[in-house]
Amino acid sequence: MSQTPSIPKGTRDFGQTEMARRNYLFDTIKGVFRTFGYSQIETPAMENLSTLLGKYGDEGDKLLFRILNSGDAFKDIDPSSMLGPDGRPDSPAITKEICEKGLRYDLTVPFARYVVQHRNDITFPFKRFQIQPVWRADRPQKGRYREFCQCDADVIGSDSLLNELELVQIVDKVFHLLGIRVVMKINNRKVLTGLAEICGFPDKVVDITVAIDKIDKIGLDAVKEEMASKGLTPEAIAVIEPVLTLSGTFAEKIAAMKAIMNGGSASGAVSQTGLKGLDEIEELFGLIEAAGVETPVEMDLSLARGLNYYTGAIFEVKALDFAIGSICGGGRYDNLTGIFGLPGMSGVGISFGADRIYDVLLGLDKFPASLSSSTTLLFANMGKEETKYVIPVAKALRDKGVSIEIWPEPSKLKKQFDYASRKSIPFISINGTSEAQDGTVNVKNLSTSEQRLFPAMDTDSIIAFLQG
Amino acid sequence: MSQTPSIPKGTRDFGQTEMARRNYLFDTIKGVFRTFGYSQIETPAMENLSTLLGKYGDEGDKLLFRILNSGDAFKDIDPSSMLGPDGRPDSPAITKEICEKGLRYDLTVPFARYVVQHRNDITFPFKRFQIQPVWRADRPQKGRYREFCQCDADVIGSDSLLNELELVQIVDKVFHLLGIRVVMKINNRKVLTGLAEICGFPDKVVDITVAIDKIDKIGLDAVKEEMASKGLTPEAIAVIEPVLTLSGTFAEKIAAMKAIMNGGSASGAVSQTGLKGLDEIEELFGLIEAAGVETPVEMDLSLARGLNYYTGAIFEVKALDFAIGSICGGGRYDNLTGIFGLPGMSGVGISFGADRIYDVLLGLDKFPASLSSSTTLLFANMGKEETKYVIPVAKALRDKGVSIEIWPEPSKLKKQFDYASRKSIPFISINGTSEAQDGTVNVKNLSTSEQRLFPAMDTDSIIAFLQG
Repeated sequence: MSQTPSIPKGTRDFGQTEMARRNYLFDTIKGVFRTFGYSQIETPAMENLSTLLGKYGDEGDKLLFRILNSGDAFKDIDPSSMLGPDGRPDSPAITKEICEKGLRYDLTVPFARYVVQHRNDITFPFKRFQIQPVWRADRPQKGRYREFCQCDADVIGSDSLLNELELVQIVDKVFHLLGIRVVMKINNRKVLTGLAEICGFPDKVVDITVAIDKIDKIGLDAVKEEMASKGLTPEAIAVIEPVLTLSGTFAEKIAAMKAIMNGGSASGAVSQTGLKGLDEIEELFGLIEAAGVETPVEMDLSLARGLNYYTGAIFEVKALDFAIGSICGGGRYDNLTGIFGLPGMSGVGISFGADRIYDVLLGLDKFPASLSSSTTLLFANMGKEETKYVIPVAKALRDKGVSIEIWPEPSKLKKQFDYASRKSIPFISINGTSEAQDGTVNVKNLSTSEQRLFPAMDTDSIIAFLQG
Repeated sequence: MSQTPSIPKGTRDFGQTEMARRNYLFDTIKGVFRTFGYSQIETPAMENLSTLLGKYGDEGDKLLFRILNSGDAFKDIDPSSMLGPDGRPDSPAITKEICEKGLRYDLTVPFARYVVQHRNDITFPFKRFQIQPVWRADRPQKGRYREFCQCDADVIGSDSLLNELELVQIVDKVFHLLGIRVVMKINNRKVLTGLAEICGFPDKVVDITVAIDKIDKIGLDAVKEEMASKGLTPEAIAVIEPVLTLSGTFAEKIAAMKAIMNGGSASGAVSQTGLKGLDEIEELFGLIEAAGVETPVEMDLSLARGLNYYTGAIFEVKALDFAIGSICGGGRYDNLTGIFGLPGMSGVGISFGADRIYDVLLGLDKFPASLSSSTTLLFANMGKEETKYVIPVAKALRDKGVSIEIWPEPSKLKKQFDYASRKSIPFISINGTSEAQDGTVNVKNLSTSEQRLFPAMDTDSIIAFLQG
């Protein structure tokens, strides 16, 4: 036998069991998106590189999968331009000439491109969800793939906090339906901006937030050291310190933060942006309370994801009973479509980490048991004439939605039973000449061994037996 | 405004309406596949080029989208090997060095690769379906895309004709559910082989079949001329001619063909292969009759698709009320996995042409009208407090599966009505302070203008009203 074929590293085949589980997961999420009025779109796997490049930073640009131009990709290239001064191929220069397209790296940039391209046909606010694979040339490792599925819902064209509320409700409902206990953390970029402003280092918001984000891991002193190492003065750090040691109820924390932003810090500075962020958090938590959300939702001023593009709310969801990091996240962005020339569109979105949620469901054994089998009843094959007898019975059951197989060959019964067992088919029906003469079918429950005889066309009774 | 972004030629965005229609189409087909015990698999978009190359002929190899190796693709290339003797870049030589992966060109080769790679985990006969996009660098034109979705069901590991029957039943059921009248044509590669054998040109089976295939378009004399031009002798053509003018019932045609294959032709030659093919057709038609298939199924000895790989049954489906060519096809292949070193696996499969079926459904106006809207009820926004009042009502309705939106801003009512109208949302609910005080909600049917007041938490009555 020749070499066994394989697939590119970092990619996966999904067999019947994985597909049943993935469909369950995606169908659950889609169902929730739909009850909130989000509608599905899909965009092509390939986008023009002009759409993708420069949107994910230098590192992201390197991780794009580029597609060789079709036909003769080198047709128009000047051979003298192919080598660099060192006599080696000038990879960036050649790549630019031979690749115009790349594979989708996420769903956000194609969504922004979609909104701008179709803006005249879209009804705003535009609520869309999108569940499609994306590709990244990351180094493959456990839980990190080069092809993986993203699962995003966004609403664009409205800056109302009701949109944030809906995303919180969607998270609440999805994990409730999946049976996963989670905690949701919420921050607001404007508060982080405000903090940088009142401590006098408005350009260091990322450094400050990245340091704050580590407090649970490294402790207060180390966070202060890190801020000092980034150039913050002791006075600036003294402004930030009370924020790091904030305690009390939500209302107490908000009140304390408002005082800090309103001139009550060591610097005495006021940040209108910070106050606006606190107002937004307060209003959103009020809406969450009114909506009766089950999931615990916490304000977490150290939450620092997506700092480069989020401008308002920042969300993150973690599983309470399974250590795997963030399984869902999102936030508000005020200028997503600006990169494609359509400024002033505010949006907010959430992304479910499908692969991680899959792992949580598997790890906590939360996938429904009924997913394991695709076929409900196997008609055994007792010969050509007997099979002709069962074909219309199988048809009548299939017409009522039951999944039926007929064993294709008149094999030994053991082989047929083995097949049912390996595929976890719960019922078998063995019919010989006597059943054919009587117009009956025998149906056996393979786990209880209960066996019953039905008039062949009494499909309702057969189905009742199959449904146990 | 800067240049409007666009997508690569031959690719498409699918908006909410197209997605609803595509989902309806794929869900219908999937549902039927499932009732026959087929289970879904998915394979990666990228395959190793070693898996893809040489499987689709030279023309197919040219149409593969190749993916540039990640990192520095030119790192290990010898600069002196990059130019050909003419001083131009040696495109094939360079491409081989810089691209190891390509995008899936169809679902059949990845399926064969999957079966061989996972053969120890698969329960045979293996019934799988797969619905995924494929990519071909074809010249884009009306109805031909560079990214399109294939929709295949195959069973591998059984040579029983019951499998062919099931595929016929699947076709029958799918088009019945979709409301498209079709005709299904069936041929058998063995009959074509037999014909080439008895006329003395066993190596010209493709030439003969391609010529026969044209009889409806160009007539008998032209077909005979074409065969002559391919090197067939007048004696050979005299053997074939009676097959071209076959008439009568199915039984009469089969009997006549059996006589021809059994020494009754002008050559007097016998073809066991041809006789076997006729037996298979006869047995399959017997099964089709026993199964009560609604779709007209015809034997068509001129059907010539997939001659390079089909070894038994050949299927083709055409719409009766819409001119668009074949919308579904398939056949039996005896050595699909042999290319990957696993010989002796017989399989049979069918592929639904999703894009064409979509066009037929659209052309015949057969998509269900209910697909057009995603949201059932829009709660108008009358202010912050009024909105807080409706949030729990919306939640209760969503929890029962109704798709609900709440307008996010306290805009003018006209704007909110316009949104409902543009999105075809059939119901609107406008609630002010009086409803909030009374604990009621107002629901208005926007097409009939009927308006009713409900106790806010009587969701069952509200839902009954929404369902008309």
